[in-house]
Amino acid sequence: MLISGTPTRTIWREDDAVVIIDQTRLPHEFVLRRLHTLVDAADAIALMRVRGAPLIGATAAYGLALSTLRDASDAGLQAAGEQLIATRPTAVNLRWAVQRVLSCLLALPVEQRLSAAWAEAAVICAEDVAQNQAIGQHGLSLLRALAEKKSGPVNILTHCNAGWLATVDWGTALAPIYAAQEAGMAVHVWVDETRPRNQGASLTAWELMQAGIAHHVIADNAGGHLMMHGLVDICIVGTDRTAANGDVANKIGTYLKALAAYDNGVPFYVAAPGPSIDFSLTDGGKIPIEQRDTDEVACIQGRDAAGQLVSVRLTPEGSPAANPAFDVTPARLVTGLITERGVCAANRAALAAMYPEWSAT
Amino acid sequence: MLISGTPTRTIWREDDAVVIIDQTRLPHEFVLRRLHTLVDAADAIALMRVRGAPLIGATAAYGLALSTLRDASDAGLQAAGEQLIATRPTAVNLRWAVQRVLSCLLALPVEQRLSAAWAEAAVICAEDVAQNQAIGQHGLSLLRALAEKKSGPVNILTHCNAGWLATVDWGTALAPIYAAQEAGMAVHVWVDETRPRNQGASLTAWELMQAGIAHHVIADNAGGHLMMHGLVDICIVGTDRTAANGDVANKIGTYLKALAAYDNGVPFYVAAPGPSIDFSLTDGGKIPIEQRDTDEVACIQGRDAAGQLVSVRLTPEGSPAANPAFDVTPARLVTGLITERGVCAANRAALAAMYPEWSAT
Repeated sequence: MLISGTPTRTIWREDDAVVIIDQTRLPHEFVLRRLHTLVDAADAIALMRVRGAPLIGATAAYGLALSTLRDASDAGLQAAGEQLIATRPTAVNLRWAVQRVLSCLLALPVEQRLSAAWAEAAVICAEDVAQNQAIGQHGLSLLRALAEKKSGPVNILTHCNAGWLATVDWGTALAPIYAAQEAGMAVHVWVDETRPRNQGASLTAWELMQAGIAHHVIADNAGGHLMMHGLVDICIVGTDRTAANGDVANKIGTYLKALAAYDNGVPFYVAAPGPSIDFSLTDGGKIPIEQRDTDEVACIQGRDAAGQLVSVRLTPEGSPAANPAFDVTPARLVTGLITERGVCAANRAALAAMYPEWSAT
Repeated sequence: MLISGTPTRTIWREDDAVVIIDQTRLPHEFVLRRLHTLVDAADAIALMRVRGAPLIGATAAYGLALSTLRDASDAGLQAAGEQLIATRPTAVNLRWAVQRVLSCLLALPVEQRLSAAWAEAAVICAEDVAQNQAIGQHGLSLLRALAEKKSGPVNILTHCNAGWLATVDWGTALAPIYAAQEAGMAVHVWVDETRPRNQGASLTAWELMQAGIAHHVIADNAGGHLMMHGLVDICIVGTDRTAANGDVANKIGTYLKALAAYDNGVPFYVAAPGPSIDFSLTDGGKIPIEQRDTDEVACIQGRDAAGQLVSVRLTPEGSPAANPAFDVTPARLVTGLITERGVCAANRAALAAMYPEWSAT
């Protein structure tokens, strides 16, 4: 992505450090942060300075490299991996990336592990970028088909942020939108603000602004009304974990949009890169759902009239809140999965055919 | 309702003025505001210092009394009625109350109109209170039936604020909950925060806190997940306008919760007092949907660490928003309507049987 004209990824190595964009400061401030240690990386994930399943995976991979800098022993690496996996229970990419780097490193002599860790993290990032570009092209075909059937822009509704900021580059759910822009197609995006953390209002809106793509931010409550009135041509969302049967765990509220799409005949697609698919899970009911701090519901951060970032309390003092962070959208509501290998139906047979090498294990 | 031990309504006359609770300051500040003129009353409605269909109707009735103080002529009253009706297009009670007071006053000699206006507004308020108490008793029967089938509290999900603060007293959707509390039944309420204006997080949570009723505030996105996991026994919401076929226009996002309830076999009830039913509308597709200021989505008010009420911006500068304020829930998703006359199915025949005198007109 271009940020002020400069091609920029969301994570990169600089010498013995890793640089990330602190996403808790967006959209109001663009702040880079240097990670020097495993704890820096784990904190960045837990505090959601980085978020989005693919970027969490990339950050965990780099976190293992930072850990290897200080302790390349088997025990040290395994403890580091456990610490990273514990930060966010729902995202399967996190576990996938940790296990991939660990199995690479543990097979090597200790003295070769550091350079291998840096290299493997870089490969994971490069693969993510290539995957997302492929998802973009497959999704573009869906958008083209919709564009041919109507006049005016194709209206896409998305939830949360499954964009450039959720990945190393391009995004998953937003990749087809960026591909459409490159192809000169007119698109317009309805951006669910995505309470409680407002990744839509703060991150997706910011990305689309940077890219110059037409959009409107809406309350999460508005999507059903828009679909009922024919104002949404397609929904595209991301996924934190996809079960082997096509059930999708994604940001809380995704299920409600899938219901509305189904009720109104609006196609509902999930951009699902291979690493988000957990073939060990037979269905979505087994996906652990992270319960996050209830202050995310009770309070919100924004910019005041003086330009300062401040947190304000929304609920009455003493009123309790609950904060499940993900929900599971049943495969029956999903029109299709947009993978890097192509678009497939959200069911066991189609996924197994798309990923024969993983589904057999 | 008791506020700090004192029985309190949401609107009352004091000499030549009308007193309201400024609901834009809740839950952080409890501020009374005196209305002296028609413009004060119209502003209170338009700026949502008072909101909720029944309370809007009561305020409009008192607004006509305030207008009559200065100009009791036919032309003056008719202009005042038009000004009030224009403040909020979706709530049918507003038009209903204005027309009721006007037809009462215009039939009288000018010199009798002022006392008649005050009296009619007071009657509208008294009727609202009685209606809501009846809705509470009918809804209580539904809650009792659920309580008999389970152990532990009955879990009710509600959207927006259709409570004491939305009416003159007791509320519509919350009336059964207050009735259950009086009856000694254990209840727990999931409170949708109800973006963009957060009437749930600020008003419903505050009411339930005042009443000592167990509750949790949740993001609007969370309800589907809770229903999928069996954590919601019943949904009860209010209505701003109910069509003759049982379609319900209520706060934006209601439709999404009705879809989730239907998908999970959770009963979905709408507390619908007679004045909210518009027998002139054959279905909900004809209900005008108010589009409100997009700053309601882009910005939010809360209390900062110093205790001050401040508004903060959530979206990137220059990112546009859209703000439809209501949606229509199709009657097919509504288990039943809780009216002051009893619970009835959400369809034309049942409503006509419940209100034969109105449906014939």
